[in-house]
Amino acid sequence: MDLKAYLQIQREKVEKALTLILPELEGPSADVVKAMRYSLFAGGKRLRPILCIAGAEALGADGSHVMPVACALEMIHTYSLIHDDLPEMDNDDMRRGKPTNHKVFGEAVAVLAGDGLLTEAFRVMAQTPLGMIKPGALLEVISLVAQAAGYQGMVGGQVADIQSEGKTVEPAAVEFIHSHKTGALIAASVTSGAILGGATEAQARAINEYGRGIGLAFQISDDILDVEGNSEQIGKGVGGDARKKKVTYPSVHGLVRSKEIQKQSIDRAIHSLKAFDHKADPLRAIAAYIIERKK
Amino acid sequence: MDLKAYLQIQREKVEKALTLILPELEGPSADVVKAMRYSLFAGGKRLRPILCIAGAEALGADGSHVMPVACALEMIHTYSLIHDDLPEMDNDDMRRGKPTNHKVFGEAVAVLAGDGLLTEAFRVMAQTPLGMIKPGALLEVISLVAQAAGYQGMVGGQVADIQSEGKTVEPAAVEFIHSHKTGALIAASVTSGAILGGATEAQARAINEYGRGIGLAFQISDDILDVEGNSEQIGKGVGGDARKKKVTYPSVHGLVRSKEIQKQSIDRAIHSLKAFDHKADPLRAIAAYIIERKK
Repeated sequence: MDLKAYLQIQREKVEKALTLILPELEGPSADVVKAMRYSLFAGGKRLRPILCIAGAEALGADGSHVMPVACALEMIHTYSLIHDDLPEMDNDDMRRGKPTNHKVFGEAVAVLAGDGLLTEAFRVMAQTPLGMIKPGALLEVISLVAQAAGYQGMVGGQVADIQSEGKTVEPAAVEFIHSHKTGALIAASVTSGAILGGATEAQARAINEYGRGIGLAFQISDDILDVEGNSEQIGKGVGGDARKKKVTYPSVHGLVRSKEIQKQSIDRAIHSLKAFDHKADPLRAIAAYIIERKK
Repeated sequence: MDLKAYLQIQREKVEKALTLILPELEGPSADVVKAMRYSLFAGGKRLRPILCIAGAEALGADGSHVMPVACALEMIHTYSLIHDDLPEMDNDDMRRGKPTNHKVFGEAVAVLAGDGLLTEAFRVMAQTPLGMIKPGALLEVISLVAQAAGYQGMVGGQVADIQSEGKTVEPAAVEFIHSHKTGALIAASVTSGAILGGATEAQARAINEYGRGIGLAFQISDDILDVEGNSEQIGKGVGGDARKKKVTYPSVHGLVRSKEIQKQSIDRAIHSLKAFDHKADPLRAIAAYIIERKK
């Protein structure tokens, strides 16, 4: 399959849906919506929404039916970037080649823009037109996404990340950080699509396994790009992890071993799709692409 | 009815349910959960959960069935206090007689504790045991609460609040701030209970009208207490609004007119319950209590 074309088509659909979900606003809330839109439309890869759509398609469902949930996942991802970049967190000035949210709108509005995106994501999910989707499946997805984004997932990973800076940690600690900070939401993205697409419990488990595998591999890529990457392609400076004494796979395992772990993780992810037919090919292609990505 | 006893009993039930929903944790996420619990168990009045329960009871439903949603509302309220107190926002050091979250845990963890509470609130709502509750009603409630908490509600009100500090504003601006920052979530609290309790559309509208009325009156009380109150009873310093040049009802309308507007707002709230029988008496009593409250 032509993954590049697939990603391009899906990305355009997601962009269009996001524009409709969060239009510009007038009145006293105009500024916070401007700040929300600034980061939401800053040129993200839309990996999480595309995984949600591909997860639904793997089950034979129409990807457009899960678009609200797909968009909500991108809103949650964007909120986490805005808050992570704050001075009290990672204190980053640039993101995707543009000044970070708080650099443009100030810290107060940046905190609120993140809060607004996170909250709106749940409104958007809850208002997903049901059609073929069972209300119980939608409630299950909302719960799954919240768990992946909250203290049992992304928030927990970010706390562990901040608290481990500058420390020597065990390999288990870097695995905790990555699986929680990045892996949990990526796994929830593809699993949400599958659940809404009508997955059985066993199917949802297999897809979730796939998601955990590519989630870990994706974060290892990020770590490796920060060492080996080209800052123009990535849209932010490289070497930031070392400067901030971040706990990363290369810092704990070295580059060679990190790439081995990444490869194993991708192999396991692809293997967990063994019971799925060609409709899961986009998921297989995405897994392979994660190792090769340059940004 | 004995409102004091009613509030006491409901508050105890809410405390107990919250303890079960967010127990202490070990491991790498222990600290953020500690910070979440610090503010969640800091002695709040539990007004929003009690309104949710009383809203369900007004429809003849068992209040215990809506407890997860009631608890989620308190978690959302608590997250908003943690973020509002941050240095880049209202920069408050004390809340309910205790140091604010960021004073104890640092700004990074305070931001994440707020994020964690907000996210967890949606997980808790989505996992409400259905029993008598229709899944469609629960989805409607999740959407209603998200809308009230997000940029169309609380977040929008907070942005307008921050941006109006030190400015001379029209009466419409202070009404916008109060109805969004406080009123929206209070109205959503009681309306959620009613919807889960099986309200018709007209009943939900009437309860929502009640909620908007007491929500505005409640925030005017806050404004008045900051001028006339006793700082020991309130648990934080008084006069802070004037010092920060906050837009309040007393600053825009004066104290006498503010109390008149508050009284009218409560009268309208009680009037909107006219089609409800004695099962709505707790709601009526809460409305009357809002004017008299001293903390």
